[in-house]
Amino acid sequence: MPEGNAPFSPAEYERRIALTRVAMEKAGLDALFITDPSNQAWLTGYDGWSFYVHQGVLLRLDGEPMWWGRYMDSIGALRTCWMSADSIFGYADSYVQSTVRHPMQELAARMREMGLDVARIGVEMENYYYSAKAHEVLCAELPNAQISDATALVNWQRLVKSQEEIAFIRKAARISEKVIETAIDRAAPGVRKNELVADIFHAGISGVDDIWGDYPAIVPLTPSGLDATAAHLTWNGDPMKAGEATFFELSGCYRRYHAPLCRTVFLGTPPKEMLDAEKAQLEGIEAALNVAKAGNRTCDIANTFIAVLQKHGIYREGRCGYPIGLSYPPDWGERTASIRAEDETVLKPGMTFHFMPALWMDTWGLETTETILIKEEGPAETLCNVERKLFVKG
Amino acid sequence: MPEGNAPFSPAEYERRIALTRVAMEKAGLDALFITDPSNQAWLTGYDGWSFYVHQGVLLRLDGEPMWWGRYMDSIGALRTCWMSADSIFGYADSYVQSTVRHPMQELAARMREMGLDVARIGVEMENYYYSAKAHEVLCAELPNAQISDATALVNWQRLVKSQEEIAFIRKAARISEKVIETAIDRAAPGVRKNELVADIFHAGISGVDDIWGDYPAIVPLTPSGLDATAAHLTWNGDPMKAGEATFFELSGCYRRYHAPLCRTVFLGTPPKEMLDAEKAQLEGIEAALNVAKAGNRTCDIANTFIAVLQKHGIYREGRCGYPIGLSYPPDWGERTASIRAEDETVLKPGMTFHFMPALWMDTWGLETTETILIKEEGPAETLCNVERKLFVKG
Repeated sequence: MPEGNAPFSPAEYERRIALTRVAMEKAGLDALFITDPSNQAWLTGYDGWSFYVHQGVLLRLDGEPMWWGRYMDSIGALRTCWMSADSIFGYADSYVQSTVRHPMQELAARMREMGLDVARIGVEMENYYYSAKAHEVLCAELPNAQISDATALVNWQRLVKSQEEIAFIRKAARISEKVIETAIDRAAPGVRKNELVADIFHAGISGVDDIWGDYPAIVPLTPSGLDATAAHLTWNGDPMKAGEATFFELSGCYRRYHAPLCRTVFLGTPPKEMLDAEKAQLEGIEAALNVAKAGNRTCDIANTFIAVLQKHGIYREGRCGYPIGLSYPPDWGERTASIRAEDETVLKPGMTFHFMPALWMDTWGLETTETILIKEEGPAETLCNVERKLFVKG
Repeated sequence: MPEGNAPFSPAEYERRIALTRVAMEKAGLDALFITDPSNQAWLTGYDGWSFYVHQGVLLRLDGEPMWWGRYMDSIGALRTCWMSADSIFGYADSYVQSTVRHPMQELAARMREMGLDVARIGVEMENYYYSAKAHEVLCAELPNAQISDATALVNWQRLVKSQEEIAFIRKAARISEKVIETAIDRAAPGVRKNELVADIFHAGISGVDDIWGDYPAIVPLTPSGLDATAAHLTWNGDPMKAGEATFFELSGCYRRYHAPLCRTVFLGTPPKEMLDAEKAQLEGIEAALNVAKAGNRTCDIANTFIAVLQKHGIYREGRCGYPIGLSYPPDWGERTASIRAEDETVLKPGMTFHFMPALWMDTWGLETTETILIKEEGPAETLCNVERKLFVKG
């Protein structure tokens, strides 16, 4: 494989493609058309904010993967992918947001030329940026192909991280520590939330030493008071108030790799029920980290945490986490395994999760989370080093 | 209509819904299921970073629109939408990223209860976050409904802005001026690109006076040198170099409304061909603004610009702009009209566009753009006030 501007070694891309091809063969596929930007980047190195138009990677059982997208973005593909120029294809601008032409017609024409008109082709029906219309057009243009749903086929190959990837996530974790510490330091009554978020962005993008900050796949979530009973509200220009909790759901990002981290700040004296919940939450996290080890299952982590909460009289349902690593907006999760009661994924060394045992109660929210790495032996390693507690500022 | 936390007046939401219902009736629809986050916010005020899971707005020909999404996000909907709690619906967390259940099954069950199982229902087949799988499940669950493609039906209603919306875009424009001026001020040989982007983020989110900064739907695009020949590369940690051009494609954002603005900085002495191109570009922009008036068409803007370029020996194809306003990632365009040769949309007062006559050449890129407002009379108004030129720093 030729070496390009892509962030990883040729051997690392070979590893990824080999894994993917094994899964393709198992699924009975001759070709895979991938639209999830994270999957595209994972296989080819492609990196650009161009996923708002149709683009993707076509992988067959041999040869280089092919990057296909808008012509102007094919220039960016030449500059970011490891493949040769022969494997980069651009379509004309007249296909962009046209009501009379669809880019998938152009892709289908190329696929017919490659002899894929009668092939078994997997597509990501439930991944981002593959629209219902794109699927309809592709199916209509390739009536003799067997087009089937290969959602998450590539995502599952990403679950166990290589050493090269773990090194990136550790760098992201350095930035995560910095942004969380910035948020905790700056939070005070009267500080406008957008000013605080501006400082968070500045800390994250400026990075730590030579670890430059990339954009996280989710913007800073920093709700206070009743807004913190909802999970995903963004900021406004209101000043922070005494007597309120604010949770910070943040992540550093290094070359598209994430290490999410959440902490909560209370300005003033927290209510007793919140301190009680903190105690239960911390005890639950500690217990859960101890079962987050190779050979156990994702559900063991969730069930252990939930059991501790129940012992303290707190009832919580829903997911407690998800795998993380390479990602693009709108989500930094990998959308495969979940840390939840019904998920029985067996934990393996090299898996990385955002363990997310947050509590959203009727009048406040308490988020204290960790990015964890499953080890060869023993409990999971927490990749960020920030004191685990509810931060109280008087 | 009850008044909630939504950013606009009840009359403004009534206007939007009335426009949409006229279009629905014309399209022969009983109901519309909308997934584009911009369209959801435009109709209901909903605002949260939750579009990475399935959610949407259901609008019938009478009654309040209904917001439907993940239960934890329904709390956020109660806090951001103008509708009553009776019109907010949440689905259980066990539907989230499940391989055995799909959220659209839950939506379909609700639609059956509402008697929509035999209705004519429009869906956004080519808008963001409506996956091929979501469409497949909805069609399977409602076999007797007539489900048809209503892509961009709502987007088109957004094309002419109300006075309330224009006021928001003017506020975003104040922030756009600040971020572009920050970028131009900070650019210098040796400055690491991520440090510069950190300052851009800080300027944009801290905002201007009481105009607090929201997150733009696209991250700062700031490529230098050969990277600027590609349109959508993001930053890294490399230092800026003398002898290179860097374009800044940025937007301020106020409560999800945008006013994109681009300027280019050359560090050192620009090559003559770039200065010649600048002259042609500025002359073309001036000529194009003069034809950007009510009664003319979008193609008139593009053709006027391209004709001036051709007079100077520069051949350019592709789009020269798109409507802007309310938006969420991954795109700040509205995806309806385009400023391009084949688009004949008639310009009306109150339309706002990012007029984007950028030049991407073999060895450099030159972006000088304006957010424009079509007026009752005369040429378009440029909403940002930053000198229009190639900025040269010695």
